[in-house]
Amino acid sequence: MNTRAQIFLHSMPTLSEVAHLAGVTSATVSNVLRKRGKVGEQTRLRVLAAVEQLGYRPHLTARALAEGCAPTLALMVSSIANPFYPEFALAAERAARANGRFLIVCNTNDDPATGRAYLDQIAGTLSDGVLVMNANLSIDDLKKTEQRGAPVVLCMWEKLDAPPELPCIAVDFFEAGAIAGRHLIGLGHRHIGALVGSKMNGIHAERYKGYLSACAAAGQKHPQNRTRYIEDSVEAGYESTKALLEAHPRLTAIFASNDLPALGALNAAADMGLKVPQDISIIGITDIQWARLSRPALTTVAVPTVSAAEMAVALLLDLIGKPGQPAAMRVTATPQLIERASTGPAPFDTPLRGAD
Amino acid sequence: MNTRAQIFLHSMPTLSEVAHLAGVTSATVSNVLRKRGKVGEQTRLRVLAAVEQLGYRPHLTARALAEGCAPTLALMVSSIANPFYPEFALAAERAARANGRFLIVCNTNDDPATGRAYLDQIAGTLSDGVLVMNANLSIDDLKKTEQRGAPVVLCMWEKLDAPPELPCIAVDFFEAGAIAGRHLIGLGHRHIGALVGSKMNGIHAERYKGYLSACAAAGQKHPQNRTRYIEDSVEAGYESTKALLEAHPRLTAIFASNDLPALGALNAAADMGLKVPQDISIIGITDIQWARLSRPALTTVAVPTVSAAEMAVALLLDLIGKPGQPAAMRVTATPQLIERASTGPAPFDTPLRGAD
Repeated sequence: MNTRAQIFLHSMPTLSEVAHLAGVTSATVSNVLRKRGKVGEQTRLRVLAAVEQLGYRPHLTARALAEGCAPTLALMVSSIANPFYPEFALAAERAARANGRFLIVCNTNDDPATGRAYLDQIAGTLSDGVLVMNANLSIDDLKKTEQRGAPVVLCMWEKLDAPPELPCIAVDFFEAGAIAGRHLIGLGHRHIGALVGSKMNGIHAERYKGYLSACAAAGQKHPQNRTRYIEDSVEAGYESTKALLEAHPRLTAIFASNDLPALGALNAAADMGLKVPQDISIIGITDIQWARLSRPALTTVAVPTVSAAEMAVALLLDLIGKPGQPAAMRVTATPQLIERASTGPAPFDTPLRGAD
Repeated sequence: MNTRAQIFLHSMPTLSEVAHLAGVTSATVSNVLRKRGKVGEQTRLRVLAAVEQLGYRPHLTARALAEGCAPTLALMVSSIANPFYPEFALAAERAARANGRFLIVCNTNDDPATGRAYLDQIAGTLSDGVLVMNANLSIDDLKKTEQRGAPVVLCMWEKLDAPPELPCIAVDFFEAGAIAGRHLIGLGHRHIGALVGSKMNGIHAERYKGYLSACAAAGQKHPQNRTRYIEDSVEAGYESTKALLEAHPRLTAIFASNDLPALGALNAAADMGLKVPQDISIIGITDIQWARLSRPALTTVAVPTVSAAEMAVALLLDLIGKPGQPAAMRVTATPQLIERASTGPAPFDTPLRGAD
């Protein structure tokens, strides 16, 4: 192989090379590829044959510029290493691909400055829309992004009763918390501890309110000192479960506002020599894949992650190119109880663990 | 707010508006932003003030076109929902960002056609380089991508002794398998079962060879019927551990070529009423985050995931714009044994579990 042939192998065929081979103008090739303008069937087939023969690929970046829109969507998450996000990201990417877009995952590390830098560098240029998962971004920064022409959709929003400040996909997390509370109360639990994440931005407040409403509906009191406001992590769930059980030995159940702290609670119980669910029941919210893989498998309230991701992409695509619309809220299907092995009837008494 | 103001809010300031406000040419603004050409300090400050005042952001897509390179790297994985990939993706994204690039995660779902579609649509246009994790892509498709001008780097390659067909970051997985084997043998285990993933593409062959070499070095035989070739998943590890232990009740340890099947083996032991490590020891390879979070916590051989991701991005950036170089191999630090609670001394005998 001589040098010229080698160089040719490394360069991409251009639109004009396709046009030359097909004996048409570049504009005609462009029309065929974009299914625009009037092109005779014979010409169309000749162009497609030339495209095939040369292995020509439309230059997405160039096309994006020409059409005034970029071919990617951005997904802002705190960290893709948090086991909740990959399932959402996978579903969002599939929905984006089905609509001809690629997905850029942006990890903010819960740092507003990192998030702002992403929004400034990507929104409206490389990405023409932004999906926001809990990434600790300010509403102001997001509104500025929207005002610059890049629509924003908040995914898995919690407050169904407040008019949203930005378009959002909402989940009835209040009901998720209520379902978890009713499940524990229905099993006879009267002394329940609560792990509520996260302290920093209070995003799990609705879940906790739902849990408290289930207690109130059952005429049951939940003393405030049985609640710990913690980070949304396995480690924080582990440490605070140990602290809660040491402070309140009569607890027979733990309500956790998310699966990660609930999985940490399982580990704490194991390391304290407590049997789950014979000595203590534990319930989470979300149903991440490790909920079914833990031993005992975790009872949880499943939220519709995959359909929320699909709804978020659909809403974002609806908004792209139509700035200035009022913020829309679309609500997912209601969360569902998934009973596994980590919850069971409350023990009759807990004499070995002393008084509360 | 009148309509014109509203429209202005939704449009982005242009380079020429910045130039107009600063009283300079567009070329000067461009030079300032790219730190090129000679620009006086007064002029530079005036341009930066105008950029700030108008909220101008360089149009990345336009810049990419002008400079002949796109601002993203593509990462091909089978599925971001496999718990190994998010940690790699997070590290790769950070390394890409530190070099002014964004990362597009492409899930192939282990389908060569999906992978090929991604390569055709993205490589050399939206992305100017491709990182490939185990995504079931053909070497031919990847070589074609490279020949079109988009460099490819194979991440976490396994064969140190063969000249690579494509640039790669290699991990000494043979040694990882040998470390796991020596650990079990050193604890007195003589009857060991092996879970080797994955059947489809045999990517774990080196790990298994390393394990077998440790057996051979200790003068220990590993009968072939104690090995199961399985998918790289928790579920497959669970099912095949049950099958192995039923077929070979005298087994006192399980070597798994990856953490996911090892975690499945832990669950199988728990569900069969076996104590880990008193009745059976289990070891994996990789050290994903769930290895330390499982109960008992999983003993494993840690591979340097984060530094492999950083090395892969660095190699890819070295190759971008320099096609036709011979394929380079860079090797990460050697994997390390992480002793946790899932391995212990072999039991003296296993009378209750009968003959092998």
